[in-house]
Amino acid sequence: MDRLEGVRRYVDDHAEAMIADLQRVVRQPSVSATGEGVAECARLLVEIMAGLGIEAEVVETDGQPLVLGRARAEREDAPALLVYCHYDVQPPDPLDAWEYPPFEARRVGDRIVGRGTTDAKGNLMALLQAVGALRATGGLPVLLTFLFDGEEESGSPSLPAAVERLRARLQADAAMAFDGGFDAGDIPRISLGTSGLLFVQLRARGAAHDLHSARARLVPNPAWRLVWALATMKTPDERVQIEGFYDRVRPPTEAERALLERAGWDDEAQRRALGVERFIDDLQGIDALERLLYSPTCNIAGFSAGYAGEGSKTVLPATATVNLDFRLVCDQDPEEIARLLRQHLDRHGFADVEMRVLGGSIEPSRTPPDAPIVDVTVEAARQVYGREPRLLPTGDASGREATWLANRLGIPGVQTGIGPPAWRGHAPNEFITVRHYLDGICFAAAIWLLAAERLRA
Amino acid sequence: MDRLEGVRRYVDDHAEAMIADLQRVVRQPSVSATGEGVAECARLLVEIMAGLGIEAEVVETDGQPLVLGRARAEREDAPALLVYCHYDVQPPDPLDAWEYPPFEARRVGDRIVGRGTTDAKGNLMALLQAVGALRATGGLPVLLTFLFDGEEESGSPSLPAAVERLRARLQADAAMAFDGGFDAGDIPRISLGTSGLLFVQLRARGAAHDLHSARARLVPNPAWRLVWALATMKTPDERVQIEGFYDRVRPPTEAERALLERAGWDDEAQRRALGVERFIDDLQGIDALERLLYSPTCNIAGFSAGYAGEGSKTVLPATATVNLDFRLVCDQDPEEIARLLRQHLDRHGFADVEMRVLGGSIEPSRTPPDAPIVDVTVEAARQVYGREPRLLPTGDASGREATWLANRLGIPGVQTGIGPPAWRGHAPNEFITVRHYLDGICFAAAIWLLAAERLRA
Repeated sequence: MDRLEGVRRYVDDHAEAMIADLQRVVRQPSVSATGEGVAECARLLVEIMAGLGIEAEVVETDGQPLVLGRARAEREDAPALLVYCHYDVQPPDPLDAWEYPPFEARRVGDRIVGRGTTDAKGNLMALLQAVGALRATGGLPVLLTFLFDGEEESGSPSLPAAVERLRARLQADAAMAFDGGFDAGDIPRISLGTSGLLFVQLRARGAAHDLHSARARLVPNPAWRLVWALATMKTPDERVQIEGFYDRVRPPTEAERALLERAGWDDEAQRRALGVERFIDDLQGIDALERLLYSPTCNIAGFSAGYAGEGSKTVLPATATVNLDFRLVCDQDPEEIARLLRQHLDRHGFADVEMRVLGGSIEPSRTPPDAPIVDVTVEAARQVYGREPRLLPTGDASGREATWLANRLGIPGVQTGIGPPAWRGHAPNEFITVRHYLDGICFAAAIWLLAAERLRA
Repeated sequence: MDRLEGVRRYVDDHAEAMIADLQRVVRQPSVSATGEGVAECARLLVEIMAGLGIEAEVVETDGQPLVLGRARAEREDAPALLVYCHYDVQPPDPLDAWEYPPFEARRVGDRIVGRGTTDAKGNLMALLQAVGALRATGGLPVLLTFLFDGEEESGSPSLPAAVERLRARLQADAAMAFDGGFDAGDIPRISLGTSGLLFVQLRARGAAHDLHSARARLVPNPAWRLVWALATMKTPDERVQIEGFYDRVRPPTEAERALLERAGWDDEAQRRALGVERFIDDLQGIDALERLLYSPTCNIAGFSAGYAGEGSKTVLPATATVNLDFRLVCDQDPEEIARLLRQHLDRHGFADVEMRVLGGSIEPSRTPPDAPIVDVTVEAARQVYGREPRLLPTGDASGREATWLANRLGIPGVQTGIGPPAWRGHAPNEFITVRHYLDGICFAAAIWLLAAERLRA
């Protein structure tokens, strides 16, 4: 019998127990934003992993703890995979909007409803159940190192330092992550990269306090200072003018362009979804998708000075503040971009403009599409779901997940997920379907079975 | 006996009654912002004026009513003066901060405390009492037309149309106003002009709603649109770049420059008061004062887009708004400047930026220093107060007072006031002193006595 077929049958036979396991984990809150239940959830996972024959431990960090686990393969020379997921969840607010209590994990028809059912406890438990299913049906074909983050929903601020400390224990041939879910049309999505992020606050100061605006003839206006500084940073042609900003931008390879073509892009649907009549530079089709995935931004996320409401209030503001976020692409480095920005301001006469890096900077990441783990994941999706997955050579959002981790460790990585389309991520009434959960277990198993054949072929 | 000496004695002899009259008017609230008591106060003034032999009536407008009065001179060929003041007051909030109820007009030592005691009911009653004092001591030497505004504290929106309707009845040889008070050091201030004001709101729009900032690669950011539009409007050298903006700016005459020199300017004190280390262009001395009084501004009064608080919120804002106020100088016209701004935006590729004029535009005004009413007022101040007044050839603030009214009617005008220094204008515990009130009555009488001699000499 085909090994994947054996896993399928095992999963069908043990579905109720596997669902109960997921419910048990969802019922343990683990809100990283408040800290509620996070440590308890980490201990619960160690217990569950031990029951599946996975050596696991809680690893403390400067923030929320990691759960680190190791599942040995049947064969000594099996390939090694690093498997990332996270066990923390978004806060359940607003509570009133939930049809069922968010930590009850109630089963309603084909759905299990609750915070974390998809993001990411459903994903995480699918990974763990796949170990049990493979072990029970012929053995685990790969060596697995599990790294479960306890603060992904808070931007994983402690992860970079922890990865450095654990570097030796995280070595593997490739990395993978389950998180999130399917695209519309029930299409599995596989992503090979993430954007980086740099978030800075600029502030200019004028008088000691707000003044009557008649004084604007004599007293510098900090809002004008920021306008002039910003105008030197990006021009109306949307080109960032910070010297050196584009130096490390790596355009898509031929193979990546081909993936973009295959992934497809519906201009009309995208414009409708975003609520705009046209895109910057009138971009269309694959050019728009390429811009979205391969170009960095300098975005004004916020600008605040004086009073901009209705009615005339003639004030000369004492301070002005702008928040900027830069989406970065490989191989831009957030720390270097911050340095270049400071240099740019100084060189253009804006040494008086104060600059602070806010929030955690995130490095961009990318895995080459010809890495064996990519084919393995695509083929596994075909086998389990009977359809072609959507393979994106990189992503527009920023996060510290599989490809980020892989880039840190110098290995290839893929990012995918098993939740249903429209699974209400970060919103009330988050759910997973029983089918997506059980299929997800098979998907993990299929990846590992194929990896055993191909990763060291 | 000298006529002014006669007035002084009369005022001294009738001080208690004159104070009681002021208290009566202060006790009648007249808050134009809410409308509270405004109509009642107008009727009260008509009654008081009738008692002083002044023909008075309430004149309705599109907003709060005016009080219009006429006091005939002893001689048919006497010069005619238009006398402006306002009877509405600022709201008394915050009520908790008053030591005595704001509409009780309590006498505390030398002070009368209450909303409007200086601004402008003390000024207004001094003008009216001067009519009574002159009539009782030899006759009124000039023909007076009183125009008392009921919405000055709300920007006098109905005044321009009312002045047009009443134009024939407002004819005079010169205009004057009492409002406000003395400068620090108990120095009377006389001003010969006001700034104009244009207040506009610019708005740019992007997507239909705020988006995840990763989309900034494709979707235009309205905050950047406003930054780029603003950067074309004023450059870091503080020059406004709107085509034609400076065309009508009239620099100071030799006589006006001489007045600036005489008025004086203490750089250190001014910088300390405004809380800045240096002025724009490192301006100092009379050059700073000239810039303050004779140059127009384009001021960012407010800029609002997205989120500019602490913590990283990576949003692509759907709209951005900026409020701009332009302080204008003679002979700039607010309506023309608004047209030039719209043309500028269109010509520079910002036809998409929406523009609305907010609040009432105000024309700048200026009276030549060699007009006879100027010397009359200065000399009257010397006679009554025994010191040299501070004569400013124009003012940095904007309002529809004596010089604005005078410019409308094609006559010269002066703006002065009788309240004490630091009289807590627009703030809790506003007051006037008995001395400033009684001296103010003599000041009005002295102006009129001198005007009778010199205005048609």
